Amino acid sequence: MMKFQGSHILSVSQFDRESVARILDVAKRMIPYASRQKRCNVLEGAILNNLFFEPSTRTRVSFGTAFQLLGGFVHETVGQESSSLTKGESLFDTARVISGYADIVAMRHPAMHSVAEFAEGSTVPVINGGDGANEHPTQALLDLFTIEAEMNRFNKNIDDLNIVLMGDLKHGRTVHSLSKLLSLYNNIHLTLVSPKELQMPDHVVSALDNAGHKVTITDSMVGNLQSDVLYQTRIQEERFASKGEADMYRGHFSLNKSVYEQHCKDNTVIMHPLPRDSRPEANELDVDLNDNNNLAIFRQAQNGVLVRMALFALALGVEDKLSQYEREVTWFSSKGN
Amino acid sequence: MMKFQGSHILSVSQFDRESVARILDVAKRMIPYASRQKRCNVLEGAILNNLFFEPSTRTRVSFGTAFQLLGGFVHETVGQESSSLTKGESLFDTARVISGYADIVAMRHPAMHSVAEFAEGSTVPVINGGDGANEHPTQALLDLFTIEAEMNRFNKNIDDLNIVLMGDLKHGRTVHSLSKLLSLYNNIHLTLVSPKELQMPDHVVSALDNAGHKVTITDSMVGNLQSDVLYQTRIQEERFASKGEADMYRGHFSLNKSVYEQHCKDNTVIMHPLPRDSRPEANELDVDLNDNNNLAIFRQAQNGVLVRMALFALALGVEDKLSQYEREVTWFSSKGN
Amino acid sequence: MMKFQGSHILSVSQFDRESVARILDVAKRMIPYASRQKRCNVLEGAILNNLFFEPSTRTRVSFGTAFQLLGGFVHETVGQESSSLTKGESLFDTARVISGYADIVAMRHPAMHSVAEFAEGSTVPVINGGDGANEHPTQALLDLFTIEAEMNRFNKNIDDLNIVLMGDLKHGRTVHSLSKLLSLYNNIHLTLVSPKELQMPDHVVSALDNAGHKVTITDSMVGNLQSDVLYQTRIQEERFASKGEADMYRGHFSLNKSVYEQHCKDNTVIMHPLPRDSRPEANELDVDLNDNNNLAIFRQAQNGVLVRMALFALALGVEDKLSQYEREVTWFSSKGN
Repeated sequence: MMKFQGSHILSVSQFDRESVARILDVAKRMIPYASRQKRCNVLEGAILNNLFFEPSTRTRVSFGTAFQLLGGFVHETVGQESSSLTKGESLFDTARVISGYADIVAMRHPAMHSVAEFAEGSTVPVINGGDGANEHPTQALLDLFTIEAEMNRFNKNIDDLNIVLMGDLKHGRTVHSLSKLLSLYNNIHLTLVSPKELQMPDHVVSALDNAGHKVTITDSMVGNLQSDVLYQTRIQEERFASKGEADMYRGHFSLNKSVYEQHCKDNTVIMHPLPRDSRPEANELDVDLNDNNNLAIFRQAQNGVLVRMALFALALGVEDKLSQYEREVTWFSSKGN
Repeated sequence: MMKFQGSHILSVSQFDRESVARILDVAKRMIPYASRQKRCNVLEGAILNNLFFEPSTRTRVSFGTAFQLLGGFVHETVGQESSSLTKGESLFDTARVISGYADIVAMRHPAMHSVAEFAEGSTVPVINGGDGANEHPTQALLDLFTIEAEMNRFNKNIDDLNIVLMGDLKHGRTVHSLSKLLSLYNNIHLTLVSPKELQMPDHVVSALDNAGHKVTITDSMVGNLQSDVLYQTRIQEERFASKGEADMYRGHFSLNKSVYEQHCKDNTVIMHPLPRDSRPEANELDVDLNDNNNLAIFRQAQNGVLVRMALFALALGVEDKLSQYEREVTWFSSKGN
Repeated sequence: MMKFQGSHILSVSQFDRESVARILDVAKRMIPYASRQKRCNVLEGAILNNLFFEPSTRTRVSFGTAFQLLGGFVHETVGQESSSLTKGESLFDTARVISGYADIVAMRHPAMHSVAEFAEGSTVPVINGGDGANEHPTQALLDLFTIEAEMNRFNKNIDDLNIVLMGDLKHGRTVHSLSKLLSLYNNIHLTLVSPKELQMPDHVVSALDNAGHKVTITDSMVGNLQSDVLYQTRIQEERFASKGEADMYRGHFSLNKSVYEQHCKDNTVIMHPLPRDSRPEANELDVDLNDNNNLAIFRQAQNGVLVRMALFALALGVEDKLSQYEREVTWFSSKGN
């Protein structure tokens, strides 16, 4: 198992199965604090530097909240504000200075490998919140946490599952990173549903093969959605030469109540990294599934807080002190209900 | 009286007189904390999500400070940063995710009714910080609080007052919302001074009539400013077809020391929602009144913190625990003096 | 000595030698908290309004962190967001309102003297974080702190030092303010190395002369770098008529390992206000000096936090209560090592 205390979290490739299990276990312990049955102030006085050189409200707020839920202070930088970077300052210099102002750093940046480069100069642990097309490890971890949590309702584990990944599997770093994590588990049947032009890259498929999983590649939903989990991603219009070309794919892989009832199992769990396009013409993941309890997309988003709390706790070595710093919640909350 | 605990604050129309009295009463209890005679940490560990999809330094900082004055953490989003919204995400989805990251939300958004739409998806209380031309309920409440506080100096109440509203009464949501709240009180004489083209909308005047108030509509200041309160608003240049047209109105309704001494009572209290245009050519509310103690505009702005503290406390059900969470102020402050 | 409690910090001209010594002394007491041997929550519940009307990641984060390291809340405004200012609101009005929302204000603004104008309207202490080409007093103080701290390693004081200031000495407010502070000390030999066109302004040189210091003005590095401290600043391309003209100077005053070994003393301490241009063509301060322990540039940046903590503590009158509010650090940190 990797040593978490004092370590950077840059890539899903850092993890073996035991390390992932450890993260998910600590994340589970965060539920009472996130749902406000208790609060925890183990990080009182600690400072998170939340550096979002590329905007992302959802991920930024989730990181910041996670740290505050452990009692810590958050200090944020949003956007390519930093005139320093345009004056030729290296990421090493930026890191050496900025990391001195914090106990831990969460960072998103549009350039591939930029977060690792920053980590080289940092004097404190750095957590990758997304570095361009490269990695978004906390998203992969929250996806895995969600699969495990949802399957627990049916007394299943990640091993032996049937999982469908559907949509643009070529460009989505989300499904690539999740696939890498799934490679750590046993005997999964993965069905990859996408247009031929948007298939999962070979190296990801190979990794799944090598892990001993069964992989089915198809461009048709028919007969292929009888799974435990159906993970839907966007057909990303901006990836195509023209809107017309994108529209050809639209609707071929959209999910709504009728498709679900016709093609899925009774309890197929639906996941989506969000945001989803809710406009009627989007044909992506229809709002008519909102009252289906197997739609896990909002629980999935909430799990992001748990996983990020866990990573903060592990990197700062407080994961076994949580109960010692529990406090009563003094205000009204309906979250735990 | 409305139930505050767990409730959204979206519109002044939610309130009956008893509810308003309750808010103002709780706001009054906040004075020792805002003036730093004591501090209060009843919301220690709680998280406010301060969502300003439209910039507004004054209102944003006031909400954030109010929450910090009760001991809570603030997490902010400023500007239409959220790429999610441009990718077609519904306000319902945004709310369902973001509200999961907070104990309470304050929100400003340029679109009418957007805050109510957001509240539909939220799992925590939402306070409207302004939704376009629609509502700005906390401004109306702080205005009312200011009227009551200023009149208390003269042993008067809101009932039976003489109040002048002056300026652009057609477009200002501020004076509309305040008028709605005044409709809950008794026997007020409201004098509405504006250019004919910028008169108060009929439905607002009708509501005042129906409440049994006396309403005088005029386009002249002469003889009409002998009031307890004179509430001045901007002639908003951007509302007119041309700058020339706007300039026609400029100065006709401007207030300065000479106008005040000639037309007002000895103790007419001057209010203004701020910001005021202080440039010499503005002819709006002159700086030569700055040393007149009846100029209440800065006290009015400070009252915004008290009212927002009160709403946070009520929505989170801690309004009766404040004294239990009082602490000493450890640093030097001249605020209470 | 100046009275710090409740006072604004606007200019280095406010300080006599005793006041500077007091600030540096309090800054030194902050080391255990900044290096996480202990934490301090003497300002728990206090609110800093961090107003950066001009972006500056480094300075903004440093101010915010400094306040959080003393246990206080930070509320930030970044960029010329404030629509109020464009609607003609005076800095006096802005200050009167915004200062009411805080216990202390740190402010950067692009216009000269704007921070002093703001301070006129403020009801709480204001610390100047840079007002255009005018002043940046906290930078000068952290530079002085760094000189003292680095010289202490060699049992030297600021009096009697040999200091080289090199680069664009005409435009850099940093070296101007530092020179003003050095005028408070005794018997310094200052060597000012710059292109003839970018020499130190006469009034700064006169002040150094009047303080009894020895000043050498030169445009050559040769034979002039045998100093205790070498303070390097950027040749600022944007100051020149053309890039070609700027390039003429480039490299004439650049520092790298070979220059250092050839021209400096064994233990000449290298300072730089940062950011530095790390691109190979920059020829400014080469990264090949990064492993030279006399390169003090990153310690210098960290000292900014200590100095800002000291100013907050002094302005809020808590500088003698720090040890009373010490707490254990609950998380893993390698900072103190």
